Amino acid sequence: MGMSAGGEDGHADTGRAEAFSDAVLAIIITLLVLDLRPPGGEPGGLLRGLLRQWPTYFAYVTSYVYVGVVWLNHKAMFRRIRSIDRGLHWANFGILFTTALLPFATAVLARAVEHGNRADERTAVGLYALVGALLCASWWAFFHYLSRHPHLTEEDVEETFFPTERTRASVGGVLYAVAGVLGCFVAVPIAMVIFLALPVFYGVTSNGLYALPSAVSRM
Amino acid sequence: MGMSAGGEDGHADTGRAEAFSDAVLAIIITLLVLDLRPPGGEPGGLLRGLLRQWPTYFAYVTSYVYVGVVWLNHKAMFRRIRSIDRGLHWANFGILFTTALLPFATAVLARAVEHGNRADERTAVGLYALVGALLCASWWAFFHYLSRHPHLTEEDVEETFFPTERTRASVGGVLYAVAGVLGCFVAVPIAMVIFLALPVFYGVTSNGLYALPSAVSRM
Amino acid sequence: MGMSAGGEDGHADTGRAEAFSDAVLAIIITLLVLDLRPPGGEPGGLLRGLLRQWPTYFAYVTSYVYVGVVWLNHKAMFRRIRSIDRGLHWANFGILFTTALLPFATAVLARAVEHGNRADERTAVGLYALVGALLCASWWAFFHYLSRHPHLTEEDVEETFFPTERTRASVGGVLYAVAGVLGCFVAVPIAMVIFLALPVFYGVTSNGLYALPSAVSRM
Amino acid sequence: MGMSAGGEDGHADTGRAEAFSDAVLAIIITLLVLDLRPPGGEPGGLLRGLLRQWPTYFAYVTSYVYVGVVWLNHKAMFRRIRSIDRGLHWANFGILFTTALLPFATAVLARAVEHGNRADERTAVGLYALVGALLCASWWAFFHYLSRHPHLTEEDVEETFFPTERTRASVGGVLYAVAGVLGCFVAVPIAMVIFLALPVFYGVTSNGLYALPSAVSRM
Repeated sequence: MGMSAGGEDGHADTGRAEAFSDAVLAIIITLLVLDLRPPGGEPGGLLRGLLRQWPTYFAYVTSYVYVGVVWLNHKAMFRRIRSIDRGLHWANFGILFTTALLPFATAVLARAVEHGNRADERTAVGLYALVGALLCASWWAFFHYLSRHPHLTEEDVEETFFPTERTRASVGGVLYAVAGVLGCFVAVPIAMVIFLALPVFYGVTSNGLYALPSAVSRM
Repeated sequence: MGMSAGGEDGHADTGRAEAFSDAVLAIIITLLVLDLRPPGGEPGGLLRGLLRQWPTYFAYVTSYVYVGVVWLNHKAMFRRIRSIDRGLHWANFGILFTTALLPFATAVLARAVEHGNRADERTAVGLYALVGALLCASWWAFFHYLSRHPHLTEEDVEETFFPTERTRASVGGVLYAVAGVLGCFVAVPIAMVIFLALPVFYGVTSNGLYALPSAVSRM
Repeated sequence: MGMSAGGEDGHADTGRAEAFSDAVLAIIITLLVLDLRPPGGEPGGLLRGLLRQWPTYFAYVTSYVYVGVVWLNHKAMFRRIRSIDRGLHWANFGILFTTALLPFATAVLARAVEHGNRADERTAVGLYALVGALLCASWWAFFHYLSRHPHLTEEDVEETFFPTERTRASVGGVLYAVAGVLGCFVAVPIAMVIFLALPVFYGVTSNGLYALPSAVSRM
Repeated sequence: MGMSAGGEDGHADTGRAEAFSDAVLAIIITLLVLDLRPPGGEPGGLLRGLLRQWPTYFAYVTSYVYVGVVWLNHKAMFRRIRSIDRGLHWANFGILFTTALLPFATAVLARAVEHGNRADERTAVGLYALVGALLCASWWAFFHYLSRHPHLTEEDVEETFFPTERTRASVGGVLYAVAGVLGCFVAVPIAMVIFLALPVFYGVTSNGLYALPSAVSRM
């Protein structure tokens, strides 16, 4: 399934792929809102019930920010794509698929911090690292495909752009793997710091590493 | 993350941001429909079960109207935007994020009025005021960003337009804070009246305060 | 809120209103799919469990067809609209709001037929008739607004088109009221027949009563 | 309802039908994500709880891939459609309707493999075969309609294209029926192999059987 159809399908417009991706990402970004519900319990216990849900709020915020970063990257990359073939569609499906796992991994982590013991925290950190690494792998495949099929990209995109982006994705994948190992075998907080730092890094560099210097200079 | 990317990304079209916002707001506006479910209970108890759900209906109506007002404002503002940079994307994400909290705050308030005691009502009023104030703060940030980056707006937008809108958002934020304090420490119904009045005010002035006289004259 | 903004906002494009409506209707049409879940129960009881859910399947089918009819009507009407002002936006919100109640009313009716007694069936028939009448009322308001604001419609729309559509909506509202009364006080099956007949009627005439003769001749 | 409106409605654009279909398919493709939730249970039991959910993950993956294939086919076919009349809208609604049943059938099958006995597995295999056959039948009706109404298709589409696609759908329907019979009366694993093979076949041939040779040569 992961092959290029080329030929007949070679120069489709990107409009429907973007519209479909927008709709899927809109659903994913609001998924954790579904977990925000009036807490049950005795009359008089509302405040305590609301406060006890703090990991749900935290999970909503972090997962929302992360999916926002994915959307910004998605938009920045599709601006550089002229046409989509079947292989690139499947690479795009891969990104949407792994992004859809983020709210789940975030909710599991938030719950483990609240209710679980040390073993649960290590499990949750491992799951989150796995999903993060899968997300990076799906971006890697996307960039790799575009590096190998330059006829799909806009003409003003530099030849080195997508290979560089592919490296950015590799680095992310390695860092998630390291965070997972450190979190499971050394200390959970180290993993947490890496988890929070990575989307910030990807958010700042959503126009590619090339844009980093100018982005930093504008901070 | 909250910085202007400028440069390379500076003059993107607004199409995808609008499509994404439409999808997110469509999900938010229908969120409380998910709470409308056939009531359980004994055969013969359907009518009583349906009537007992009245706070859910009330929450659906008010949250629907409020999100409708947000959508109208969103559309009216994006008509005045020529291009979006990363900072404005994050300001837009902020509006969608806080709007997504409205159905939750509304459901908590509806439930507190039905099941809770006085303490619960004060808590729920405080939560609703907090979400309302956050929503105003996110619009404030959006208008502030546009005031500072006039190159992002359409050329026929008057220079004073977005500063005036920013003031409109400030007033809303202050009123939500006042409503929250009055509701928590004086009387819950006062807060309720302010809560119902504010979206009506924003609905009537969705084209900006400038449009108010003509809007009123047409009522 | 139900007033024309006119002036500044008078000639907005209809693109975002259509995109937003499409997204909302897409959510509504799939709402009852969320109720299709693997039945719980003992090993070996799957077939019985699946068959016992038949009212859920029936509700999904009928609600899906009805929302499909609403979408076709919505599309057929928006083809005749040139620009939207605030009043028409609220009329459109009204249609989306009442359509979103259809899956709820359908699920209540399906459940009452399965689990309820005669009193429950009458209640459910009354609720469904109420929602159907509200849906007709929202279309009535939409057509009334367009009859009074002909500058919002495309130039090739005949002057009598929207008044005729308004009549079509009135007839539907009356029939739902009659069905509700007959169902509550005479016999539930009579109401059911009217409930099933009305969307078929609206589906066949989704291009307006004018198109009826040619539609029938093509059946 | 399944008739051609022709005449007045005959040459509508396909934009809204595609946007609506994209939104519905985006909801369907993410439906099984809603089943990915932090497992409950005692502190320390997270890892076991997560592993025990494997049929849910498997169901998410397979249903996601299948809906992805449907989307690709949908996009490939709509590229060949010039205008839509009412009959084709209903054929399209039929495809979306049956596709929306896929996550349900997949979840039932996954659950039967995990929790059920042999009778449950046969039931679930029968349900999945039924939904698969319905999906093929809805595509068959879609292609049949286009074969009979060539004025709706783009001019460069070969006359034999849609009849050939119709045959492709017939073959799928027969194979699902065979898989259902074999799975219910002979052996469940045979049916499973056919279930997994069919979306792969449709994915590879999403540009039609004509495109198969070139697609295979590129694998």
